[in-house]
Amino acid sequence: MRVSIIMGSISDREVADKVVKKLMDFGVEYEAKVISAHRAHQELMEYVKEADKDTAVFISIAGKAAHLGGVIAALTTKPVIGIPVKSSTLDGLDSLLSTVQMPSGVPVATVAINGSENAAILAVEMMAISDDSLKEKLDKNRQEMAEKVKNTEYKYEG
Amino acid sequence: MRVSIIMGSISDREVADKVVKKLMDFGVEYEAKVISAHRAHQELMEYVKEADKDTAVFISIAGKAAHLGGVIAALTTKPVIGIPVKSSTLDGLDSLLSTVQMPSGVPVATVAINGSENAAILAVEMMAISDDSLKEKLDKNRQEMAEKVKNTEYKYEG
Amino acid sequence: MRVSIIMGSISDREVADKVVKKLMDFGVEYEAKVISAHRAHQELMEYVKEADKDTAVFISIAGKAAHLGGVIAALTTKPVIGIPVKSSTLDGLDSLLSTVQMPSGVPVATVAINGSENAAILAVEMMAISDDSLKEKLDKNRQEMAEKVKNTEYKYEG
Amino acid sequence: MRVSIIMGSISDREVADKVVKKLMDFGVEYEAKVISAHRAHQELMEYVKEADKDTAVFISIAGKAAHLGGVIAALTTKPVIGIPVKSSTLDGLDSLLSTVQMPSGVPVATVAINGSENAAILAVEMMAISDDSLKEKLDKNRQEMAEKVKNTEYKYEG
Amino acid sequence: MRVSIIMGSISDREVADKVVKKLMDFGVEYEAKVISAHRAHQELMEYVKEADKDTAVFISIAGKAAHLGGVIAALTTKPVIGIPVKSSTLDGLDSLLSTVQMPSGVPVATVAINGSENAAILAVEMMAISDDSLKEKLDKNRQEMAEKVKNTEYKYEG
Amino acid sequence: MRVSIIMGSISDREVADKVVKKLMDFGVEYEAKVISAHRAHQELMEYVKEADKDTAVFISIAGKAAHLGGVIAALTTKPVIGIPVKSSTLDGLDSLLSTVQMPSGVPVATVAINGSENAAILAVEMMAISDDSLKEKLDKNRQEMAEKVKNTEYKYEG
Amino acid sequence: MRVSIIMGSISDREVADKVVKKLMDFGVEYEAKVISAHRAHQELMEYVKEADKDTAVFISIAGKAAHLGGVIAALTTKPVIGIPVKSSTLDGLDSLLSTVQMPSGVPVATVAINGSENAAILAVEMMAISDDSLKEKLDKNRQEMAEKVKNTEYKYEG
Amino acid sequence: MRVSIIMGSISDREVADKVVKKLMDFGVEYEAKVISAHRAHQELMEYVKEADKDTAVFISIAGKAAHLGGVIAALTTKPVIGIPVKSSTLDGLDSLLSTVQMPSGVPVATVAINGSENAAILAVEMMAISDDSLKEKLDKNRQEMAEKVKNTEYKYEG
Repeated sequence: MRVSIIMGSISDREVADKVVKKLMDFGVEYEAKVISAHRAHQELMEYVKEADKDTAVFISIAGKAAHLGGVIAALTTKPVIGIPVKSSTLDGLDSLLSTVQMPSGVPVATVAINGSENAAILAVEMMAISDDSLKEKLDKNRQEMAEKVKNTEYKYEG
Repeated sequence: MRVSIIMGSISDREVADKVVKKLMDFGVEYEAKVISAHRAHQELMEYVKEADKDTAVFISIAGKAAHLGGVIAALTTKPVIGIPVKSSTLDGLDSLLSTVQMPSGVPVATVAINGSENAAILAVEMMAISDDSLKEKLDKNRQEMAEKVKNTEYKYEG
Repeated sequence: MRVSIIMGSISDREVADKVVKKLMDFGVEYEAKVISAHRAHQELMEYVKEADKDTAVFISIAGKAAHLGGVIAALTTKPVIGIPVKSSTLDGLDSLLSTVQMPSGVPVATVAINGSENAAILAVEMMAISDDSLKEKLDKNRQEMAEKVKNTEYKYEG
Repeated sequence: MRVSIIMGSISDREVADKVVKKLMDFGVEYEAKVISAHRAHQELMEYVKEADKDTAVFISIAGKAAHLGGVIAALTTKPVIGIPVKSSTLDGLDSLLSTVQMPSGVPVATVAINGSENAAILAVEMMAISDDSLKEKLDKNRQEMAEKVKNTEYKYEG
Repeated sequence: MRVSIIMGSISDREVADKVVKKLMDFGVEYEAKVISAHRAHQELMEYVKEADKDTAVFISIAGKAAHLGGVIAALTTKPVIGIPVKSSTLDGLDSLLSTVQMPSGVPVATVAINGSENAAILAVEMMAISDDSLKEKLDKNRQEMAEKVKNTEYKYEG
Repeated sequence: MRVSIIMGSISDREVADKVVKKLMDFGVEYEAKVISAHRAHQELMEYVKEADKDTAVFISIAGKAAHLGGVIAALTTKPVIGIPVKSSTLDGLDSLLSTVQMPSGVPVATVAINGSENAAILAVEMMAISDDSLKEKLDKNRQEMAEKVKNTEYKYEG
Repeated sequence: MRVSIIMGSISDREVADKVVKKLMDFGVEYEAKVISAHRAHQELMEYVKEADKDTAVFISIAGKAAHLGGVIAALTTKPVIGIPVKSSTLDGLDSLLSTVQMPSGVPVATVAINGSENAAILAVEMMAISDDSLKEKLDKNRQEMAEKVKNTEYKYEG
Repeated sequence: MRVSIIMGSISDREVADKVVKKLMDFGVEYEAKVISAHRAHQELMEYVKEADKDTAVFISIAGKAAHLGGVIAALTTKPVIGIPVKSSTLDGLDSLLSTVQMPSGVPVATVAINGSENAAILAVEMMAISDDSLKEKLDKNRQEMAEKVKNTEYKYEG
C-alpha cells in the first residue's frame, strides 16, 4: 500500500518535493503525478480509479479554486489529504477555503497552506493505525523533534 | 438550444427558482437538475456530456467549497456561469473564491453571491450574440429597468 | 479500536451529536468527552495518554482560538481530526485558522467549519485502510448518496 | 464581430497583453483601448456606444474600486467579462468584490484576479455558441491542454 | 446651495432617512433621488450635470459593487461623500472597498458602513468652511454630544 | 487600587456588566464610566488623569473604529486592557484590529471580541503580581473551572 | 485658509510628499507636521486647537490601529480627511477599518489606502465650494486627466 | 521577579531580540527559551511550572495556529502576553486570531502582530503596578517619546 500524490500543476513541484522527502524518511512508498482536476479531468478519473486499490491515502496539492482534493474525494472512499497551495493572489485563502469547506459526505483532510510535511506525517499516521512499525517510527520522530527543540538555545546577541 | 442549470443540492432551490423565473421572462428554454459534483460525480459527467450538444450555456449553483462550476467547465467548452451560494458560515466568501479563482484554461463566468437574476441575464446576453430577437428583448428589459427607476421616488417621511 | 471525541465545551454538544450519529451509522465505537484545552489542561493530558492505546482516531471539536486539536496532536501520534466550530463572532474564521494552520511536525486533519459528518466519515475512512468491512460500508454509503441525488428532482413551481 | 478590450489604466498593460495573445491564438479579432471609468467617463460612454454594434463581447481590466466592468455593463447589453486586477494593497480582494458583486439586472462575468487567459477563452466560448469553427478550436485547445498535462512528469530529485 | 443625495435603490431608504433627518437638524437644504449607477446610467448623468451648479456636496448611498459614488465623482468636481451600505452578504465589506478604494484623481470621501449621520455631518462641515452660522451649529452640536455623554451614567445592576 | 472601566457608549453596557460581575467575584474594587474617545475627548482626558493614581489597570470597551483603548494608553502608563466590541457590521473585525494593532510605544492588552470575563481576569492577574491573596483567588478559580469541566458529561441522546 | 497635514510618524513621509505635491499643484497653502496620536497626545491636542482657525481642512496620515484621524476629528469640527497607510502586516486593512469605521457624530472622510493624491484633491474640492478660482482649477485638472487618457494608446507588442 | 519569554521556534528570534532589548532598557530581568507548544509539549509544561514562582509575566511568541500563549495561560495564573508572529501566509491574521480569541477563563493579553516592543512595555507596566521605580522609568520613557516626536520635523523636498 502506498501514498498517491497528485499535484494540479508542475508549478507545485516544490510543495510536492517536501511531501516526498518526508514520506521517504518514514520508508513509505509513494507515487506522484501531475494531473489537473480541470485541465485533465478524464485522466484524473482514470488514474484515481486505477490507483485506488494500491493506495492507502491520496494527497492532493492545488492552489486558487483548488478543486483537486474534492474531485479525488468524490472518486474514492480512501482518505484524501488536501494541501492548499499559496498562489500569487489572496495569499492562499482561496486555496484553503476551496479545499477545506467540503459539503457533507465527502471529506478532505486539510492541512495548513503549503503544509507539505504535515500532509506526509498525517498520511503516515493514518497508515500506522494498523502498522505497528510505522507507529514506532512516528513516536521516534516525535521524540526527536522534542529533543531537537530541547537543544535549541536562544541567546540575545544584540 | 437551451440553458442547462445544475444545482449542487436541493437546498439551493430558491436560488434556482429565480434563475428559471428570469429565463422564462426572456422565453429561453432551460433544463434544471440537482447533481452534486462530489456526491454524484459520475452522474454529473454523464449529464454534462449528454446535455452538451443541446446546451448553449451551463449555469452552476453551489456553495461552500463550490467545485460544481469548475467540474462542469472541465467537461465542456460551452460557457459556464457560476453562482456562488451563501452558506451558513463565512457569508459566501468560500463559495465565491471557490468559483471565481479558476486556474488558467478553464474559465467559470462568476456572478455575485446568490446572483440568480444576473446569471440568467448573462446567459441570455451570450445567446443574443447571434440571436437578434433575444437582443431586442434584452434592450427592452434594460429600458424597462431605467423607466422603473425613473418612476421610483423617495420621499422623507420622518 | 474506537474513535475518541473531545469537545472543548458542552456548548458544542450539537456538533458532537452529529459526529456520534454518523459513527453509529457505521457501527464504529466511540467515546465522547468534554475537556477544555485551556480550562482543564491537566485532565486533557491524562485523558489523551490513557485513551491513546484504544483509540484509532481522535476528533476535536472547538471554537474561537481553537487549540484543542493542536494540543491533542501534541500528545499523541494517532491521527487527529479537527472540527472548527462557528462561534458568535467572525463566523468561524478564527476557529478554522486556529485549527488548520498547524506548524510543521504536528498535523491536524481539518474539516469544514461545523463539519461534523465529514469528521466522522474521515475517521471511518482512516480506519478502513485496514478494515475491509468498513471499506464496504463506506462504498455502500457513497452509492446511497449518489442514488439519493439521482432521485432528487427539482421542479420550478414559481 | 470582435472582442473589445478596455483597460482602466496603461499600468494594466501586462494583463491586457495576455488577453490579446490568447485571442490571437484563436484567430479572434479584437480592439484594445485605455479608458478609465473615472478619469474619462465621457470618452468611455462614447466608445462603448460606438463599438457596440461591432462587438460580440467586452472585456474590462481594472483594479482597486474597479467600476469599469460595471459601467460598461450599464451602457450595453452585450456580455461584459471583468478581470479584477491585483493592485498594490489588499491583494486584489477590492478589485474582485468591486467587479463581481454587481446588483441585479446588470451582470459582469467575472474571472479570477489577473485571469487574462480565462477572460479570452470565455469570450471565445461565448462567440462559439453560434460559430462551429471556433467551437472546434476550443475543443482542440482543450485536448492539447490535456495532452500537455499527460506529458508533464514529476520526478523527485531531492 | 444644497446637498444632493442619490441612493442606488429604494431599498436604501432607511439609510437615506437618517441622512435627511440630520441635514434637517442643521437646517441644510437637500434633494434626494433614487438613481442606480447601473440600471439608469443615462438618467444619473443627466441628473448630476443638472444638479451640479446648485449642489455643494453630493452624497451617494449604495451597496455591493457600489459604483454610485465613483460614477458621480467622475461627473463632477464637487465633493462626493460615499456611504457603503451593508447588504445581504459579506457584511458590507464589498460596499466599503468598492466605495473607498478609488483610483488616483477621483476621490470619494467615504464614511463608515451605513454611516448616515456622519455623512450628513461631514457634508455640513464642508459647507461650514465658508459659512460661519453652520460652523456655530456644528460646534453647538458637538458640545451637546459631550454634555449628553457627561450625563450618561452606567450603574451595574447585576 | 482599583480597576477603572471606561466604555465608549452606554450601548456597551452588557459587555461592561460581565466585566463588573467578574471583578466583584474576585472582590476587586472598580469604577465604571461611559466616556467616548470621540464624542467627549476632553472629559476622557480629565478622567484618565484624575483616576490615574488610584487605578491599577484601565479597561476600555469600544467598537467599530475603536480608539478608546489607544487614547487611554496615550494618557497613562498604567496597563490598559482593550475589549473590542462586536458591532452591527464586519462582525467585530474592525473593533479588534483598531484595538490590537497599536504602534510601537503604546500597548493595549487586547482580549477576544466581547471578551468581558477575560478582561476582568487579566486585570486581576496583573494586580496579583504583588498581591498574594488575589493570586490565591485566581488559583482557586482555576481549580474550580477544572472541577466544573471534570463534572460536565456529554451523553448522546440522539 | 490652509490645509493642515498631520502624519503619525516620519516613516509616512512618502505618503505625505504626494499630498503636498498635489496641493502645491493647486496653489493651496499647507502646513505639515509629524505628531503621533499615541506618542504625543498632548502636543497633538495643542496643535489642532491652535491650527483650527487658520485651517480649512485637516488631513491625517496614519497606519495600523490608525487613531490619528479620529482623534483630530474629536478635537475640531473642521472636515478631517483620513489616509490609511499600508503597513508591514495585513496590507492596510487594519489602517482602513480604524480610519473609516468612525462612530456616529465624528466623521473622518476616508480615501483609499495610501490615497495621497485623492486626499489632496478632496481637500481642494471642499475649499472650492466657496472659491470659484479653485473650482476652475479642479475642472481644468479633470479635463487634463481626460485628455491624458485620450492620448494614452495601448499597442500589443507581444 | 523576571519576565519569562517563550518563543515557539528559533525562527522567531528576531521578534524575541526586540523584546529582550526593550526589557534591558528598563533594567528588567528576563529568561528566554525556545519551546514549541506542539513539538515539545512536555518540556513546555515542565518549564512553565518550574518558572512560575520567579516569573511576574510570561511573554509568548508564536505564529500560524499560535497555541503557545493559550497553552502557557492554561498552565499558570500569571499574566501571559501573546505576540502573534507574521508568517509566510495570511500575513499574520491566523497568528492574531489564534492568540487573541481565547475562550472565557484563560486570557492572553495580545499585542499587535510582531509587536515586540509593546509586549515588553506592557510587561513592565504590569510589574510597575507595585514598583514605583519602574513606574518612573515608564513615565520617563513616555516623555522621551513625546520629546522625540516634538523634534521630528517633516520638510517637503519634492
